[in-house]
Amino acid sequence: MNKITKLFGIKYPIIQGGMIWCSGWELASAVSNAGGLGLIGSGSMHPEILLEHIRKTKENTDKPFGVNVPLIYPEVEKIIKIIIDEKVPVVFTSAGSPKKFTPILKNKGITVVHVVSNTFFAKKSEVAGVDAIVAEGFEAGGHNGREETTTMALIPNVAKNISIPLIAAGGIASGKAMLAAMVLGADGVQIGSRFVASEESSAHTNFKQAVLNAGEGHTALMLKKLIPVRLINNDFAEQIREAENEGYSKEELAELLGQGRAKLGMFEGDVLQGELEIGQVSAQIRKILPAKDIIENIVKEYRYEKQNVGLDGKYDFV
Amino acid sequence: MNKITKLFGIKYPIIQGGMIWCSGWELASAVSNAGGLGLIGSGSMHPEILLEHIRKTKENTDKPFGVNVPLIYPEVEKIIKIIIDEKVPVVFTSAGSPKKFTPILKNKGITVVHVVSNTFFAKKSEVAGVDAIVAEGFEAGGHNGREETTTMALIPNVAKNISIPLIAAGGIASGKAMLAAMVLGADGVQIGSRFVASEESSAHTNFKQAVLNAGEGHTALMLKKLIPVRLINNDFAEQIREAENEGYSKEELAELLGQGRAKLGMFEGDVLQGELEIGQVSAQIRKILPAKDIIENIVKEYRYEKQNVGLDGKYDFV
Repeated sequence: MNKITKLFGIKYPIIQGGMIWCSGWELASAVSNAGGLGLIGSGSMHPEILLEHIRKTKENTDKPFGVNVPLIYPEVEKIIKIIIDEKVPVVFTSAGSPKKFTPILKNKGITVVHVVSNTFFAKKSEVAGVDAIVAEGFEAGGHNGREETTTMALIPNVAKNISIPLIAAGGIASGKAMLAAMVLGADGVQIGSRFVASEESSAHTNFKQAVLNAGEGHTALMLKKLIPVRLINNDFAEQIREAENEGYSKEELAELLGQGRAKLGMFEGDVLQGELEIGQVSAQIRKILPAKDIIENIVKEYRYEKQNVGLDGKYDFV
Repeated sequence: MNKITKLFGIKYPIIQGGMIWCSGWELASAVSNAGGLGLIGSGSMHPEILLEHIRKTKENTDKPFGVNVPLIYPEVEKIIKIIIDEKVPVVFTSAGSPKKFTPILKNKGITVVHVVSNTFFAKKSEVAGVDAIVAEGFEAGGHNGREETTTMALIPNVAKNISIPLIAAGGIASGKAMLAAMVLGADGVQIGSRFVASEESSAHTNFKQAVLNAGEGHTALMLKKLIPVRLINNDFAEQIREAENEGYSKEELAELLGQGRAKLGMFEGDVLQGELEIGQVSAQIRKILPAKDIIENIVKEYRYEKQNVGLDGKYDFV
């Protein structure tokens, strides 16, 4: 057992990111059954939909699972109440301050993890009483920090400045990357993009296919005047790029973005005009797989490379 | 010996990046004497100055060393002639195509390495006949790729697609980061920022101090309409940021940049109005050290963490 497997009571320190439009009960329960920690992404769910997903997850796994809650979500109070009522064991919060809800959740015996993109908020979150931190690098998909610190640069800084367990996110979809993140100072990893292209992901099949097609350099961090978000290049992203080059204001960009773009792209399958949130690591994803296979492949490669560090001459110049 | 120590005939697979205004004979010879590969940065040198630095490096070390040559440099033909005449053993080329000069240099028995920021050009460079590749991530200081692929995401892609030795750059200033880069698929590392703040660096003391002062999130990739460059935030960078937000054209940005900004900041010490090129890893640099100590500290931490992978319970959840 390491710090993360102990904290959550799971087999492998692999968390499946609670992504909007992709992570419902089917993915969360499959990941938890496979020995990781599955998260339901509540950011794209009305409260009654979340309730249904929590109940179905419980029906489909007897292992620990969690819910990701973006704290800027308008119905966050209702979401938190449902989580408490349903005795969900783990909550990952993001996009906001963990001060308000952490004590409330902790009082109910819920394990709380907060997602940050810099060391300053990692320290603040530890003070707020969370049980662990996810530190997410610039290469990650979806919403992202303004400082653009990459996983390689971020993880050592956070590790040095907190004493609670640390989960690395951004750029991780393989056993090698998992081991690299652990070497940098993490105790576990959160993986998003790789699970978008899983059989159990609720992403539209067109979006899954777009992830398989995405090569290196095919994503970009955009809409920085609003909330920075990493998207696959498509017609919509090209419009945004041109608008940004021309110096569009925050308000003009918000109008161009409109409402429901992420749903349009990721859930309804309009891969030209929708927002397609994915990480740089999409370039390494070439096949839709069951969540169980994804986890087993990662653990297998992790074990192999871990042994390699002791055996391979590459590492032994000294 | 691993692939990189063998290729260059050095003790540790640690290359000191050939940076403008920082890497003269003093730094290059100190690094080579300490068991790494020191590089003279010719990008900020007139040919006669380079000649002097090559000769002084030879006087000060009997170990292998090299010269970094940005191929867009106007006097590149003269630079190449000097390198050949002086029998410099190693050349690192960057910022241009390796097609033209690689065969010329290889014919003279010179080891040639090309710096890239994506897999496409890594493959092209291998075809052009270079001996090794430096793949540099988004977090690196100075000039940088347009696709913004980070070290974590880039190294596995390049490693999978080339068969020549691979050197990782960007975000590396410690033994842990070096080991992480090796786990991701590199055979060695190129380190820039850490050596800017070395005793032997020719950077102005004000610039070295600015590097020590730079915290997490204090650099940004700017001037993307010209050539993207990672700079420390200062008054000049703030002007650029505002101009970019307002949608300044390429031409307007070039005018705002003017001539000699990098020299002004990095060599003459105007840390408010100069360009201060440094990587995100500057947040980890808190002390000016002799190059020898930098290398020994990195190797010591590398060895320690390498053992840890076999011993520490953190890695042993399976």
